[in-house]
Amino acid sequence: MFEPPIQRLIDELARLPGIGRKSAQRLAFHLLTVEEEDARRLSRAILEMREQVRLCRRCFNVTDSDECSICRDLRRDATLVCVVERPQDIVVVERSREFRGRYHVLGGAVSPIEGIGPERLRFRELVERVRTEGITEVIIATNPSVEGDATALYLAKVLKPEGVKVTRLASGLPVGGDLDYADELTLGRALVGRQEM
Amino acid sequence: MFEPPIQRLIDELARLPGIGRKSAQRLAFHLLTVEEEDARRLSRAILEMREQVRLCRRCFNVTDSDECSICRDLRRDATLVCVVERPQDIVVVERSREFRGRYHVLGGAVSPIEGIGPERLRFRELVERVRTEGITEVIIATNPSVEGDATALYLAKVLKPEGVKVTRLASGLPVGGDLDYADELTLGRALVGRQEM
Repeated sequence: MFEPPIQRLIDELARLPGIGRKSAQRLAFHLLTVEEEDARRLSRAILEMREQVRLCRRCFNVTDSDECSICRDLRRDATLVCVVERPQDIVVVERSREFRGRYHVLGGAVSPIEGIGPERLRFRELVERVRTEGITEVIIATNPSVEGDATALYLAKVLKPEGVKVTRLASGLPVGGDLDYADELTLGRALVGRQEM
Repeated sequence: MFEPPIQRLIDELARLPGIGRKSAQRLAFHLLTVEEEDARRLSRAILEMREQVRLCRRCFNVTDSDECSICRDLRRDATLVCVVERPQDIVVVERSREFRGRYHVLGGAVSPIEGIGPERLRFRELVERVRTEGITEVIIATNPSVEGDATALYLAKVLKPEGVKVTRLASGLPVGGDLDYADELTLGRALVGRQEM
């Protein structure tokens, strides 16, 4: 429909998650009309990220060296490990400033629908870490979704025999939220997890 | 917040229209986890589009050669010119299969708010074409918006003295639409432009 170089870019942009054909078209024409250097910078940023970013050999967080900055930080508590689905989840947990241990990135969650079984995730590497790094507690911070819950259950089953404490982030009402807007599932979890005052 | 190469990509993505910081972050991590070749293809598509796509020297449509495929097509009626704001509008008009003339891309619409005056658009080039190409009718297909209407009025004023017929696309009810859902402005235009049956 469009000139081939434009159509190719539209096709590539439309492969990105959350970008439909209409948005891809709008973005392609935007990149056609901005300053040449702006378009070049985006192109370069994609390449350089892929060239420079690796996964931490210990926790699979993103890093530009062998181990990530959190694993290298000697002030962090190495006996505590927080398990997350994706590297970007680490930034969210870090923002809370409540966690001073290390992480372990699974690379996703168990999902029979998407064909992601336990063997596709980094469970084996986690068990190995529990056995060799003197870890005393594994905090499971997978998403509070069907897949995240299934992953947490599977993890608990695998880790308990290793003699390590396994906990899961509390589900409940969001702080600052309004009871009126809470869905039944969240409210149900908040009730089950209620704490004595 | 993130590793520098990731943060740089997030920053570049967030400069795109309609992409917020959250989407930029999601896209960056997507590009980090897809196959290396997929990321490279997107990076390359951006560069190649900028290297290969030029503007048609006659109508300012996008093209990969000196003149665009429509201007080169000898079966098209060279006496009829359809004026659009942006190159992507040509594809929309072409889809209607009702127009067999040539185009002229203004490069935007007059907008005092955004500081776009007539001198920023390709009016002069259009007047020049009307004088030299034997054009008998100019169909104005700028958007049915405040800016598009102002641009059309300005164009009509400039072109009339050249002795060329100047028309504007009809405004009215969208085909297949429901009268219930038509806004007052559209309905008003449809009334003014009513046609005898």
